[in-house]
Amino acid sequence: MMANRKADSPLDEFELIDTLFAPLARSFAGAFELKDDVAVLSPRTGHELVLKTDSLIESVHFLHDDPAGTVAQKALRRALSDLAAKGAEPHLYLLAIAIPVATERSWLEEFAAALASDQRRFGIALGGGETNRTPGALTITVTALGWTPQHALLRRNGAKPGDDVWVSGTIGDACAGLAILKGEESSADPVARNYLVSRCRLPEPRIAFGKALRGIASAAIDVSDGLVADLGHVGEASQVTIEIEAAAIPMSAELCGLWGNSEKTLVRAVTAGDDYEIAFTAPPSAAGAVEDMARQTNTRVTRIGRAVQGPGTAALLDSLSRQIPLPRKGYTHF
Amino acid sequence: MMANRKADSPLDEFELIDTLFAPLARSFAGAFELKDDVAVLSPRTGHELVLKTDSLIESVHFLHDDPAGTVAQKALRRALSDLAAKGAEPHLYLLAIAIPVATERSWLEEFAAALASDQRRFGIALGGGETNRTPGALTITVTALGWTPQHALLRRNGAKPGDDVWVSGTIGDACAGLAILKGEESSADPVARNYLVSRCRLPEPRIAFGKALRGIASAAIDVSDGLVADLGHVGEASQVTIEIEAAAIPMSAELCGLWGNSEKTLVRAVTAGDDYEIAFTAPPSAAGAVEDMARQTNTRVTRIGRAVQGPGTAALLDSLSRQIPLPRKGYTHF
Repeated sequence: MMANRKADSPLDEFELIDTLFAPLARSFAGAFELKDDVAVLSPRTGHELVLKTDSLIESVHFLHDDPAGTVAQKALRRALSDLAAKGAEPHLYLLAIAIPVATERSWLEEFAAALASDQRRFGIALGGGETNRTPGALTITVTALGWTPQHALLRRNGAKPGDDVWVSGTIGDACAGLAILKGEESSADPVARNYLVSRCRLPEPRIAFGKALRGIASAAIDVSDGLVADLGHVGEASQVTIEIEAAAIPMSAELCGLWGNSEKTLVRAVTAGDDYEIAFTAPPSAAGAVEDMARQTNTRVTRIGRAVQGPGTAALLDSLSRQIPLPRKGYTHF
Repeated sequence: MMANRKADSPLDEFELIDTLFAPLARSFAGAFELKDDVAVLSPRTGHELVLKTDSLIESVHFLHDDPAGTVAQKALRRALSDLAAKGAEPHLYLLAIAIPVATERSWLEEFAAALASDQRRFGIALGGGETNRTPGALTITVTALGWTPQHALLRRNGAKPGDDVWVSGTIGDACAGLAILKGEESSADPVARNYLVSRCRLPEPRIAFGKALRGIASAAIDVSDGLVADLGHVGEASQVTIEIEAAAIPMSAELCGLWGNSEKTLVRAVTAGDDYEIAFTAPPSAAGAVEDMARQTNTRVTRIGRAVQGPGTAALLDSLSRQIPLPRKGYTHF
């Protein structure tokens, strides 16, 4: 059942923290059950701490009617997806939530219960946080902390000419899901509809696969702004040009069922963002290892192109290696 | 000159990050000049990492007309003040900023310049961050990271019956400054007015003094919700009752000049919050050390009461040890 955001009774900050959020911090001693001002984290020998802060804002990153549970999990998973793409193992998160005045307690209960569920799933704990009232939009800021062995971080800047380019999962589902949620699409069959909506509301951070790519991938990035835009960042940081073969882009049957398996669908898919897949490069000699790791972690992976000498960008090529013009490269937050 | 928040031209997210925010990250190699998805922090031998996330929201924590520079610095310093009260040394911060559509570039330039100034002052760097547009209120979330030697953290729960209770600085200035800014007060002379407004807009985290209290204070807390409320947290966590002597509360000449040196002023001062001073306990044998450390760090410090056996709370007592009734203990965010 979806909780209503409209308030029926005033909320008490300390009661909310004690009842809803402190239990989320119980498994991490350094959070002091949220009964102190800070959290304390002890270093892990031979490891570096990986940090990512990320905000989810109503009407920008999610819709007013999205269930509290998927809002909570999307906020958390977006940050975890960045850690995953860097080969980091998530450990802890901090949460700052700005709650509109008209928010019911039941909405926050669903929100916290969904966080509890994801904490078990990903083996993480709440380290600390803050709740505030806001006169504006519901805003959730997650700071995720994880570990990588020293010097094992998967960076954007390691791609070399000749490397293969790969991506996990399928591309474009989330943007079709969003179109459905906004009422712009109604023709999808119920099963496809559920799949696409769930890909929009509930990304699946590729944590096990990201860890498995340590020492194999030469560069990696979380696909959140759009496949071409994000591979463009890899190209720029690595000073190579990323050639993406349009025909190789993995699109789901559900997406093609909705919009058709056309160039128009493809262009929309690779520029839309919110995929939360890992795009990465690896030398051709590592192709077997990439496929082994994908199998071991139950992850679909597709070779979608290669890195070549060039000015440091990404281009989408048709079957005759002609560049397909794109109206934009990806999503921007402005 | 105060920048206008009204937008005159569209802003480009990546250009803003490159131009305004990446320079703030330059002194910290693990931020990769904000050109990767995450930041990486190497552990400091023998130390623990101290973490605090804190949001500053327009109309809740600051006023629409507050200068961009003090908004930036208040957002940062509130989180640093929490670290200071725990004896931690600030090292790094992450920044998530949700920017209303009608925000001018010049406002953001002032915002970033003020962060740069505070970074030099406090010896810290920007580790990473995110900018987003919001349909709602300007919201700035700072996650501050600092170091303490292992087991040196100043907790809330270490106060013992018989300990002295102390506070740094003066109490109540910020609430008077806020009243002036809201137009509720007009009688203050210009010098007092500037002082009180600046205490509201620009807290001074007591970092050197907090570090100096390591091994001396038995418990400590950042005074942000109100002196009685925050010492109540210490009492509750330590299971002692904190008796605060009303006559000992340090109030500034500027505050008393505005509202009079009366019990009414005092009650308002100790329940108003936003002081960002350190309230702490220490055994009477450490009184000399407390005063030495205050002198060495140029910090005003006042003994304001003592911890006694009791149910775990804080009470304000008059000169005959009678409890002064309070309309509320402190500020709440709801």
